[in-house]
Amino acid sequence: MSTKDTIDIGVLGYRFMGRAHSNALARLPMFFPEAPKTVRHTLIGRDEEALTEAAEQFGFANTTTDWNEAIEKVDILYNLGPNHIHPEPSIAAVEADTHVFCEKPMAPTLKQAKEMREAAADSNALAGCAFNYRFVPALQYAKELIDDGELGEIHHFRGRYLQDWLVDPDAPWSWRNSRELAGSGALGDLGAHTLDLAQFLVGNVERVSGHLQTFVDERPVPDEDDTRPVTVDDAYSAQAELEGGVMGTFEASRFATGHKNDHTIEIHGSEGSLKFSLERMNELKILRGDDRGYETVLVTDESDPYIDHWWPPGHVISWEHIFVHENYEFLTAIREGKEFSPSFEDAYQVQCVLDAIHQSSKQNQWIKLDDIIR
Amino acid sequence: MSTKDTIDIGVLGYRFMGRAHSNALARLPMFFPEAPKTVRHTLIGRDEEALTEAAEQFGFANTTTDWNEAIEKVDILYNLGPNHIHPEPSIAAVEADTHVFCEKPMAPTLKQAKEMREAAADSNALAGCAFNYRFVPALQYAKELIDDGELGEIHHFRGRYLQDWLVDPDAPWSWRNSRELAGSGALGDLGAHTLDLAQFLVGNVERVSGHLQTFVDERPVPDEDDTRPVTVDDAYSAQAELEGGVMGTFEASRFATGHKNDHTIEIHGSEGSLKFSLERMNELKILRGDDRGYETVLVTDESDPYIDHWWPPGHVISWEHIFVHENYEFLTAIREGKEFSPSFEDAYQVQCVLDAIHQSSKQNQWIKLDDIIR
Amino acid sequence: MSTKDTIDIGVLGYRFMGRAHSNALARLPMFFPEAPKTVRHTLIGRDEEALTEAAEQFGFANTTTDWNEAIEKVDILYNLGPNHIHPEPSIAAVEADTHVFCEKPMAPTLKQAKEMREAAADSNALAGCAFNYRFVPALQYAKELIDDGELGEIHHFRGRYLQDWLVDPDAPWSWRNSRELAGSGALGDLGAHTLDLAQFLVGNVERVSGHLQTFVDERPVPDEDDTRPVTVDDAYSAQAELEGGVMGTFEASRFATGHKNDHTIEIHGSEGSLKFSLERMNELKILRGDDRGYETVLVTDESDPYIDHWWPPGHVISWEHIFVHENYEFLTAIREGKEFSPSFEDAYQVQCVLDAIHQSSKQNQWIKLDDIIR
Amino acid sequence: MSTKDTIDIGVLGYRFMGRAHSNALARLPMFFPEAPKTVRHTLIGRDEEALTEAAEQFGFANTTTDWNEAIEKVDILYNLGPNHIHPEPSIAAVEADTHVFCEKPMAPTLKQAKEMREAAADSNALAGCAFNYRFVPALQYAKELIDDGELGEIHHFRGRYLQDWLVDPDAPWSWRNSRELAGSGALGDLGAHTLDLAQFLVGNVERVSGHLQTFVDERPVPDEDDTRPVTVDDAYSAQAELEGGVMGTFEASRFATGHKNDHTIEIHGSEGSLKFSLERMNELKILRGDDRGYETVLVTDESDPYIDHWWPPGHVISWEHIFVHENYEFLTAIREGKEFSPSFEDAYQVQCVLDAIHQSSKQNQWIKLDDIIR
Repeated sequence: MSTKDTIDIGVLGYRFMGRAHSNALARLPMFFPEAPKTVRHTLIGRDEEALTEAAEQFGFANTTTDWNEAIEKVDILYNLGPNHIHPEPSIAAVEADTHVFCEKPMAPTLKQAKEMREAAADSNALAGCAFNYRFVPALQYAKELIDDGELGEIHHFRGRYLQDWLVDPDAPWSWRNSRELAGSGALGDLGAHTLDLAQFLVGNVERVSGHLQTFVDERPVPDEDDTRPVTVDDAYSAQAELEGGVMGTFEASRFATGHKNDHTIEIHGSEGSLKFSLERMNELKILRGDDRGYETVLVTDESDPYIDHWWPPGHVISWEHIFVHENYEFLTAIREGKEFSPSFEDAYQVQCVLDAIHQSSKQNQWIKLDDIIR
Repeated sequence: MSTKDTIDIGVLGYRFMGRAHSNALARLPMFFPEAPKTVRHTLIGRDEEALTEAAEQFGFANTTTDWNEAIEKVDILYNLGPNHIHPEPSIAAVEADTHVFCEKPMAPTLKQAKEMREAAADSNALAGCAFNYRFVPALQYAKELIDDGELGEIHHFRGRYLQDWLVDPDAPWSWRNSRELAGSGALGDLGAHTLDLAQFLVGNVERVSGHLQTFVDERPVPDEDDTRPVTVDDAYSAQAELEGGVMGTFEASRFATGHKNDHTIEIHGSEGSLKFSLERMNELKILRGDDRGYETVLVTDESDPYIDHWWPPGHVISWEHIFVHENYEFLTAIREGKEFSPSFEDAYQVQCVLDAIHQSSKQNQWIKLDDIIR
Repeated sequence: MSTKDTIDIGVLGYRFMGRAHSNALARLPMFFPEAPKTVRHTLIGRDEEALTEAAEQFGFANTTTDWNEAIEKVDILYNLGPNHIHPEPSIAAVEADTHVFCEKPMAPTLKQAKEMREAAADSNALAGCAFNYRFVPALQYAKELIDDGELGEIHHFRGRYLQDWLVDPDAPWSWRNSRELAGSGALGDLGAHTLDLAQFLVGNVERVSGHLQTFVDERPVPDEDDTRPVTVDDAYSAQAELEGGVMGTFEASRFATGHKNDHTIEIHGSEGSLKFSLERMNELKILRGDDRGYETVLVTDESDPYIDHWWPPGHVISWEHIFVHENYEFLTAIREGKEFSPSFEDAYQVQCVLDAIHQSSKQNQWIKLDDIIR
Repeated sequence: MSTKDTIDIGVLGYRFMGRAHSNALARLPMFFPEAPKTVRHTLIGRDEEALTEAAEQFGFANTTTDWNEAIEKVDILYNLGPNHIHPEPSIAAVEADTHVFCEKPMAPTLKQAKEMREAAADSNALAGCAFNYRFVPALQYAKELIDDGELGEIHHFRGRYLQDWLVDPDAPWSWRNSRELAGSGALGDLGAHTLDLAQFLVGNVERVSGHLQTFVDERPVPDEDDTRPVTVDDAYSAQAELEGGVMGTFEASRFATGHKNDHTIEIHGSEGSLKFSLERMNELKILRGDDRGYETVLVTDESDPYIDHWWPPGHVISWEHIFVHENYEFLTAIREGKEFSPSFEDAYQVQCVLDAIHQSSKQNQWIKLDDIIR
């Protein structure tokens, strides 16, 4: 990164995640004026026409179909493409000392994730993984409570992530149904979020037993008179032992009829308990000390994480705000030469658990993480 | 307004509402690309230093302390100051055929509101009042259900708006505690929203009985060793008959300990019922036809009002998004030369009910709206 | 009452309330062994056949169609008939020094209620009114919290009672639709409960403004080819000032589509707030001191009111249990020669407010209770 | 059983379950008059003094400390003692053609359960296991919906049962902490309920992977200056494949701080979903067909299972009512010579899964039920 005042950003991917991060960058100056100034420099993609249109809408000055070219020019590469696009450009970027902010899960395979992690370790660039839910104010607040010992010794972590967009057997095939392109299904797409929150809030998984299931074996290809096989899981469950003897249970599904984006976390400790639901993300249910029941706390007070940047108490924020927080932290870490979590190292930990769950499901037995992380 | 491509906007007020509308204007291009293009032209205020700083943060090219000057230069005046600032600049603007978007409630007194309404009626400019909650997707959806007859004949409308920021007797005095500057307290600040939703969703108030109460009579003035009298209500309740014999009950308080921004609406008709709560604004509880209980609907599907502009199902939006919708509609109405609701006429209706509640509370008897609206 | 060991009970009415109280009496020995022993002595009604069948099912030794006869023989008369049956037998009983436990509301008219209250005052018998909801553990617990000052100075009391059994215009006419037989509609049937809870939890109503409405003017008579006029309210609302400047809002309806027995109470004080809903009667939502949100407390701990007589924590109790508590308290008061609340005096207070709401609705103005209670 | 009109019942155990079933028997005549008439004949226990007192309170004519003697005299033996007391008297009873109603879980060990099941199969007596939650109206209603295909093909069953009475390390040791006396801990005590509901609502477990954990290894013995080892699980989790490829996840804990008796069931099918929580046992959350969210249904309508025997809509019932339903069904099956579910065969299925979870946790691998059930 040069000594200039602003940070030039190249974004690979211009669909859902491209839009979410571009919006976050655009909003920083008004709400986080102390954040580093950024330039939406180059938008990277394959379809030139769609790319040009997206660049205009998202506020990018340039476009390119060659991510190598972009890596040369920008200070940070946002790698927001499908999972199989994560490894190669991310590695190229950190090798060029260009910072990388990569979407989750890290990579389709553990081998690729390991290469990414090693490349990042050998680089002067900062490499972050966009596990955005760490930056929900209610979950930052939960983290504070746990770290302050308000919940005592933790006994249980329970996380599940429910969606229903594949329950219709005629829902179309996409890259998300392909083991080659995505690595896994509900496990990597949804479960990775839950596993990252577990390590963020409670600690690392030490051993795990997994269960993957595919309910529909093939799906129609859009605009083709054909089907393609579904080679990933439609749903997974896992049970685990985490650091310190914490029992963990995990589950995600794309077949949970009626649930759109229902990510819930529940934690029980010797002194208290917590409950969180993404669809009511401004709330945290907290039980502590002499409480007789859960307090439903609206985490929108001025003293709550990030809230002083936004609106008065009770004026709720939303999913997209999480990306603003995440970008603020990543950009600030770059400016100040500090660590950023979740790093590629953190993301690799998650990837090891994803892999262990996958292996466990195939082998019908528990897997120790020590046998995977090397 | 000139024949140029963009709409120049002048904003009077740079605090809470100034920020909310500036943000809305800034976000339109990325999410509502079909909206008219706007220029944040001039920010208007009294304190030059604060004004300059705010202009930079909110993206305004110019500042002025003279709203008359701004009215000459811009296409729309956003009047976002305290209530007592609403009448004079709004009237000046529409007299100059400059469009006006004025915050609620319309004015401190009914007399002033009437002058504003008449000035707007005599002008070619569009005059809108920023009752933003009409533009919550869940409430737009509620409106559709009611208009489609899904609830049958309406029997009950129940609205309440609870906050607690004055429950501490040492909470400081502000213009919101002054009858001269604000017109009324919880009634005009919070109740005006509820009354507007009643007329939007169900129909006009025909007669009303009100109850105003002030729990704390004087409050300390910040940075002064003195107190000033509280000359407005800390809480109000009202019961009403609306068009078609609908029973209405209304309530708001700044003394509802534990409630931050809790605006709830409940409607019962012969065929169904609805419940809405602002603190869970992505949800609408709906009971219809053969339903045995309320369905908790997450109003975030692509087919829901405005949602196709934002994120996938289950990725919730927030309070500030309402302002984007509101600005989109107002700006579109201007470009297309159409009506906009809530208009000054709609806002005047609300003002008449506010006044009737006030009179009723003093006279201890019901007031007919026909005796007020002339 | 004789000096014998058991209390002989005569019950007038063998339908809904007859069953609820008979069940309560039958359950006392197993769960409240310290309660006075009772004998279900005589069941009183008009239809001999139905009466005989009910007596067998409810465990009564005798039946009679003459309540005067029963009053001679029993120690307590439970007056559980329709409202217009309340005055005469109740007065006859207390005049014979037979204790009376009378269902609510006290009487169709204020004049009758006054006579009942005076007869009770002149008698050695105990006269109680069966406002059962005072005996919900969660509400007893609420009362303790308020009396202990945990909520500070009370500012708001909000109560509403929603049902929907008349929303169908073809729902049949019954005595509950007749001013002569019932006194009023939703007001006396449902509102009386809410008003009693207000005086129990917070204090007496000092002035009130009411609004009564009848949505359907006549209803079909069962088994007749005819309709009869509805001469009572289908719904009411009221706003009030209670002792100490508490603002009260009240509402009940038989037209609240989808609500079966939805009685909710909400209270805000300077230091805390409470919420209760009858349909989740084992729960109390409590906010106190430094709480940031309501705690959802399951009021089923051994230390909670009455719970040590029932089941372990979390093993919920129900609507009918309230009657056991109520009977326990009334019978114990008789044995110990103590006062019982709600007394006829308490019930008369409620009747005065019912009357004031009625008058207020007709006169379109506030009524002071001092002008009614004499 | 003799040809006499009434059924004589002997009850072994006079604490929690003894009270719950005695109450159920006492309540049947008033609310289920069509039920067989029963006599609370003999109460069986070891402590004569406590036994005599309990017999009086629960309405038993006789007591004995010899269950063999009772088996000779009564028509049904209710076996409500601690788990290790289940096998011997139950087997003796069915061998004497005395019907048995045995509490859950069936037995401490699979071997014992197998002997019980075989004895029952060889007998003319009816042998039922008291998995009471099948008789919650909301769950009976859920069963109807599933059987009618309203949820389509089932994909997910999720059950968890949370309590917190052992989270304090000084909570006293009891037979429930002993492998010898109880068989297992949270698994058999709480998990058995969930597993029975899974087989009732969805189908049998075909393979399972379990995880048991003990957080506190020894506990103080009441009234002794000593501790005893905890030889059972404080919490368990399991993941399973059920008939038809349904994914199941199960969990229970005695360490879930703040949860008293929180048993929840969630089911997702191709056409709909259900949610149930025991602490709100009158409610069922249902999503079907074109529903956009869960309907919160109060299962208290006259047409709902068992409700016509109780109270009007919205007048909620409770935990103890479940025992009345269960006893009604068991007694009716005896009178009519019909099957009763849950039978010893059903209970044996549950016991096999309990055993499989236990083995799986020790062996760190999945267990197929076919390898256990023989």
